[in-house]
Amino acid sequence: MNRIAFHPRRTVEDVEEGRLLAPKFDDAGLIPCITSDADSGEVLMLGWMNAEALRLTLETGEAHYFSRSRRNLWHKGTTSGLVQRVVEARIDDDQDAIWLRVAVAGSGASCHVGYRSCFYRAVPTGEKAGGALAFTESTRTFDPVAAYGDAPNPTQL
Amino acid sequence: MNRIAFHPRRTVEDVEEGRLLAPKFDDAGLIPCITSDADSGEVLMLGWMNAEALRLTLETGEAHYFSRSRRNLWHKGTTSGLVQRVVEARIDDDQDAIWLRVAVAGSGASCHVGYRSCFYRAVPTGEKAGGALAFTESTRTFDPVAAYGDAPNPTQL
Repeated sequence: MNRIAFHPRRTVEDVEEGRLLAPKFDDAGLIPCITSDADSGEVLMLGWMNAEALRLTLETGEAHYFSRSRRNLWHKGTTSGLVQRVVEARIDDDQDAIWLRVAVAGSGASCHVGYRSCFYRAVPTGEKAGGALAFTESTRTFDPVAAYGDAPNPTQL
Repeated sequence: MNRIAFHPRRTVEDVEEGRLLAPKFDDAGLIPCITSDADSGEVLMLGWMNAEALRLTLETGEAHYFSRSRRNLWHKGTTSGLVQRVVEARIDDDQDAIWLRVAVAGSGASCHVGYRSCFYRAVPTGEKAGGALAFTESTRTFDPVAAYGDAPNPTQL
């Protein structure tokens, strides 16, 4: 497999209007990744990638992330079977964010809590601002205990 | 206008399954925000919000962000006219990411370079990994010089 080269960020024009991949990683060496369902357009999750996770994602066509809670590279679906096949990858204007459009294997879920999308609650706005969060998914798509066993919950307070 | 209260993050169960808004801001006091077009589902941008930007977004129903390059609160559209009206706001499982579904005023664009979406370039994957970025929008939706004049470009190398 050819390893992908990340190019140096020489000028704003190159970064914004060029055709070379020159991603910017933050001080922790990470870049945020928006992952949406390629069919429905629904945003499934916001993940983080280090350079290796981004390379592996592009090279294999399957989403890899860096777990900030577990501090390790993470091939999404290894434990749960819910592999995310990349239909299209995009990068933004200043190349500091990734957007993956994916097809999810199995039940199609991507959230460790068991829902299809991690964004399963709506936040009231305008006149209703300050009210209670409203669930947008009424049932879990899969059983997280069956999928993950006693693996530690990644949510941190 | 009632000011929105952010609740303390007491337990993982409360954060993941509760109905209280308890957002987590990072060490810089920011939370990432995915903004997509409510009609097409296209992801337009990944922005950042501090507590005040999140409060104002929810209270006014118009997207506010915190500019990391200019270090200030930013009501999207003040300069360009491309205001983002919030159709729906969501928060993710561990409440450390926001997703806004918006209707954009005017030409419908959201990218300071002039394109509709900031994600106007596709990154090749799999067999084609390592190849050139491919533009997904062939023309700019608006003229950034006319919209922003000589305001400094927010892209940083």
